[in-house]
Amino acid sequence: MAKKSRDNAKAAKKAKAVKPLKKKIKKLEKALAESQARTAAPRVSPLAPTRFPDLPEIAGVAFAATAAGVRYKGRTDVMLARLAPGTHIAGAFTRSSTRAAPVLDCETKIGRKTGPEEGAAILVNSGNANAFTGKAGQEAVEAIASSVARAVGVPQARVFTSSTGVIGEPLPHARVTAVMDDLTAQLSPTGMEDAARAIMTTDTFPKGAMAEIEIGGHPVRIAGIAKGSGMVAPDMATMLVYIFTDAKVAQPLLQKLLSELIDETFNCITVDGDTSTSDTLLLAATGQSPAPEIRTRRAKTTQVFADALRGVMLDLAHQVVKDGEGATKFVEVGVTGAETVEDARKVAMAIANSPLVKTAIAGEDPNWGRIVMAVGKSGARADRDRLAIRFGDTVVAENGWVSPGYDEATVAAYMTRPELMIGVDLGLGDAAAKAWTCDLTHRYIDINADYRS
Amino acid sequence: MAKKSRDNAKAAKKAKAVKPLKKKIKKLEKALAESQARTAAPRVSPLAPTRFPDLPEIAGVAFAATAAGVRYKGRTDVMLARLAPGTHIAGAFTRSSTRAAPVLDCETKIGRKTGPEEGAAILVNSGNANAFTGKAGQEAVEAIASSVARAVGVPQARVFTSSTGVIGEPLPHARVTAVMDDLTAQLSPTGMEDAARAIMTTDTFPKGAMAEIEIGGHPVRIAGIAKGSGMVAPDMATMLVYIFTDAKVAQPLLQKLLSELIDETFNCITVDGDTSTSDTLLLAATGQSPAPEIRTRRAKTTQVFADALRGVMLDLAHQVVKDGEGATKFVEVGVTGAETVEDARKVAMAIANSPLVKTAIAGEDPNWGRIVMAVGKSGARADRDRLAIRFGDTVVAENGWVSPGYDEATVAAYMTRPELMIGVDLGLGDAAAKAWTCDLTHRYIDINADYRS
Repeated sequence: MAKKSRDNAKAAKKAKAVKPLKKKIKKLEKALAESQARTAAPRVSPLAPTRFPDLPEIAGVAFAATAAGVRYKGRTDVMLARLAPGTHIAGAFTRSSTRAAPVLDCETKIGRKTGPEEGAAILVNSGNANAFTGKAGQEAVEAIASSVARAVGVPQARVFTSSTGVIGEPLPHARVTAVMDDLTAQLSPTGMEDAARAIMTTDTFPKGAMAEIEIGGHPVRIAGIAKGSGMVAPDMATMLVYIFTDAKVAQPLLQKLLSELIDETFNCITVDGDTSTSDTLLLAATGQSPAPEIRTRRAKTTQVFADALRGVMLDLAHQVVKDGEGATKFVEVGVTGAETVEDARKVAMAIANSPLVKTAIAGEDPNWGRIVMAVGKSGARADRDRLAIRFGDTVVAENGWVSPGYDEATVAAYMTRPELMIGVDLGLGDAAAKAWTCDLTHRYIDINADYRS
Repeated sequence: MAKKSRDNAKAAKKAKAVKPLKKKIKKLEKALAESQARTAAPRVSPLAPTRFPDLPEIAGVAFAATAAGVRYKGRTDVMLARLAPGTHIAGAFTRSSTRAAPVLDCETKIGRKTGPEEGAAILVNSGNANAFTGKAGQEAVEAIASSVARAVGVPQARVFTSSTGVIGEPLPHARVTAVMDDLTAQLSPTGMEDAARAIMTTDTFPKGAMAEIEIGGHPVRIAGIAKGSGMVAPDMATMLVYIFTDAKVAQPLLQKLLSELIDETFNCITVDGDTSTSDTLLLAATGQSPAPEIRTRRAKTTQVFADALRGVMLDLAHQVVKDGEGATKFVEVGVTGAETVEDARKVAMAIANSPLVKTAIAGEDPNWGRIVMAVGKSGARADRDRLAIRFGDTVVAENGWVSPGYDEATVAAYMTRPELMIGVDLGLGDAAAKAWTCDLTHRYIDINADYRS
């Protein structure tokens, strides 16, 4: 009995200990959740659009996507676009001096004279970038291109391929050519969203954009897809963009428009300032709209078409930034008052690329001192005492010093928004430029440091 | 009794629950510690040298440091160096177009003709950068310089000042001038380590380096201090370096040597690629060594002196990188086989600045694909198929592909070291260059995103 009583007393004492233990567990769980949240992986970027847009069918283009098992399991990883005879194709590519085999191949094919009966095709695989793969890289490109050419009935010189994914590993091209019949059997004008999904690597959402205009009383449609700077170690960010239109435009003019517009769109975005070996943009015009041909750069109709194309390119470019690794903020940097457009772009990109600016934005800190620093290092002409800096509509610094009416609380509240505007006026001239970037967060380090646990 | 029995049973049941609860607490505590360790602040950089070096006294130089309360409490924040008559001073400054007031002031004073009886002085404060402070900035510089001139008995045009710390706030210069008597009273040839501590901002260790050589049978000494890229929001990284020697060198030759050597030392290091508005290097030669004067660039003794000076500059530059924000790895990037030295530097700095390379190093991942990417984006001439990449002594990629004998386990083990070497041979020519960088870690984001909790 005495023992039982002692046991009871012990048990009662232990029982008393339960409550504080449970309290401690709750506290620890909360602390752990908070600590983990700082580096947690969101399934989809918080900046993603609510849904994939309804892309119009583009006369003369059919799409197919399938799972070839290049690297990923249980998802599509190859897309095919078949382009009707008469389609003109323009392209823009990475400026890297270590360009991947498919990029080098595309470059030789762009702008080549084509017969009116020649169709074309674009084939893209994800999972393997076919980059830094020596001679085997070019052989893989040729194996795939010749397989597509046979299956779709177009000359091999009219087959454009891209690859994105792991680098330095030989592309298992037989897996791609093995699904060629499956792909051609599926070809459909409505398959564009599936194509957008098949080219994703670690993108957290598929990217699409469209525009519809009227030329000579007839509708002209533009629709495009992109993949962004998702990355799977040991990969690197690659941006792939495919835009389709039923407009009738000769190749040289199409190329001229693309080259012009890329400087205001894809060349003005940055996630981390690094450049892929595989960046590719292809623009295909089928000419199947009944609208009249777009003939000269200066015609009014050309401007209407260029504006619509710019809108689609900008929309896709912004989506790439919004899916930047670890991005929680989308930032537009607007520079005005520069002596030249080149200077304005230099300043905008120096701010957009600065790790110090990007981490300040992650911390929701209106750190205008770092903007001053980035302007200073840009290499553009700038005068400290003429500089004005805005966050949103609030002027924070001007005439070489903090703005007299500057209220930090207002700007701190503004900085909590997911989409931000930083304005810089250099006070020297009339030239302006914009750049778009995202913040630099713990998640970027997580994704790219590839913690080996 | 029945109730008591029920209570006992309850208590026993609860008591049984204690053990698993305690186990759960242990598990949670471990997980929390692990999670927090990923972003925890080390008090001192893991790459810091074990102790501050024994710096020799430099004839003709005396130091003092004190606490003026510019911004920090309970630490020194002003240092003064008095330089004997006949001292020649060379300087190198940030290339930023938004340079801070003290930098602009120093630039006008460097190289000015001086009388043989004119001494000189250097005054540096931490806590406030006096940057982007409009006209008040220049007024503060002048107030301090004239106070130093009076106290030390040198012309104001021979007083060089630097400021580092918060930007955009007026420098409370009266706090600095108020301690001038205290400073001059303390002046001593042995005060160099105290001076190194007074100029720190968020540096985690004071930085010093020295060399002793013989010229014409007489010893010549060089000793220097630096502060690195620590940063206190809303600050920006600033590098300040002060080097002293008793060598006799005329100002133009001293400036020429400094300008040459800076290209191989401080201009080859990077923490995040951002540039401060205040970076300053001053090199003072008192000429008080009995050694003969160093007269021409091509003399043998000049080379001996230049080599020693390079060593001191490189040592300080490496210490700055080792105290880079969040750094856990020190990396030397060696580029060989370039067509020109300029190309070799471009490639070395592109690798050293790449966030993708730097995060891979943080993750101890021998990600040679990212090195290929950085080579490609550098703008230097490179041929993918001639490129060879080494981590330490192991060739990982060559001839445009992964090296045949590449053993990932060996290289993965190498990557766990705190000091790493990345070698790139471009296979095009004989030019070479080196750059030094650190890894990009969670701690960098923590420091610079300034979490507001």
